[in-house]
Amino acid sequence: MEREKALELVKAQLTERRYIHTLGVAESAVRLAKKYHADQKKAELAAIFHDYAKFRPKEEMKQIILDQKMDERLLSFHHELWHAPVGAYLVEKEAGVTDWEVLDAIKYHTSGRAGMALLEKIVYLADYIEPGRNFPGVEEARRLAAKDLDEAVLYAAGHTITFLIGRNQPVFPDTIALYNDLVMKKEGE
Amino acid sequence: MEREKALELVKAQLTERRYIHTLGVAESAVRLAKKYHADQKKAELAAIFHDYAKFRPKEEMKQIILDQKMDERLLSFHHELWHAPVGAYLVEKEAGVTDWEVLDAIKYHTSGRAGMALLEKIVYLADYIEPGRNFPGVEEARRLAAKDLDEAVLYAAGHTITFLIGRNQPVFPDTIALYNDLVMKKEGE
Repeated sequence: MEREKALELVKAQLTERRYIHTLGVAESAVRLAKKYHADQKKAELAAIFHDYAKFRPKEEMKQIILDQKMDERLLSFHHELWHAPVGAYLVEKEAGVTDWEVLDAIKYHTSGRAGMALLEKIVYLADYIEPGRNFPGVEEARRLAAKDLDEAVLYAAGHTITFLIGRNQPVFPDTIALYNDLVMKKEGE
Repeated sequence: MEREKALELVKAQLTERRYIHTLGVAESAVRLAKKYHADQKKAELAAIFHDYAKFRPKEEMKQIILDQKMDERLLSFHHELWHAPVGAYLVEKEAGVTDWEVLDAIKYHTSGRAGMALLEKIVYLADYIEPGRNFPGVEEARRLAAKDLDEAVLYAAGHTITFLIGRNQPVFPDTIALYNDLVMKKEGE
């Protein structure tokens, strides 16, 4: 799908603020794809669509999780996690994107998971460091992103978990699995 | 088993420093048991034996985990976790303790788990706050322990996870499960 067509489809789904964030994620994803030798077109497409379902009603998302037999653990965790797998589903169904690498990058962009593919890591990280982000630690994440993809994703996952714990919020098991996966890879090196 | 007999058995297994820690855990466990209406004798016995396997050789612990068909995920994580379930096994086998509440409190004292029993929480927390402990946050944990058992265990679990992430160390999934369990209970209140 052409960039312009994708942007048009996404723009209709998002607030202006979220659309500007999306443009930032697309920019960062392309830059990371270039640096880490991933498919730049796929990275850009996944980034453009990553928040496609962000503003769907909770009830609609819940129904899709149940109907499509997605991971039911999601329902015990914060609904902020739901838009990622639901988004992958809707981007296929409504926007006609069929590339499973792109769809997986959308699906796992919030929780992460153990054994993430290159494209998944790029979108996960781009979402974390896009130019509009501004939180304690984002500069360090950007610095690492320019140096080592896994180090940067590990930092983002660890930081996310620590942030959630600091706010007494649940941590989805896949996020810990991502963190453990990268820590253990590093230990094994 | 009488306190004196248990202490004698444990003393032979530990360094002096670890034995003194054990006495602290026993003291704290009895105090917590009194406060939270658990069986004081069981709490004391589990506390006395909690580190029974602490100084067993790694290879022996690994073999026991395999032979006894314990959770094999343990083997991919730090061997610091192993002495807890291996200890429960050896305390039954070598010291003849058969009370499964006591054995479970030993088994889960390091990782924790979702749905911990009262006695398990008491030993887990006593190990964290015993008088000899001295780390940033222990005073807050002690303050919470005097007020609300679940709050204190939640604090200890969250703090442990944050500490591990700060040191780039893996986090055993059961510890996150404990954290999530208590956070969600709190949200549900």
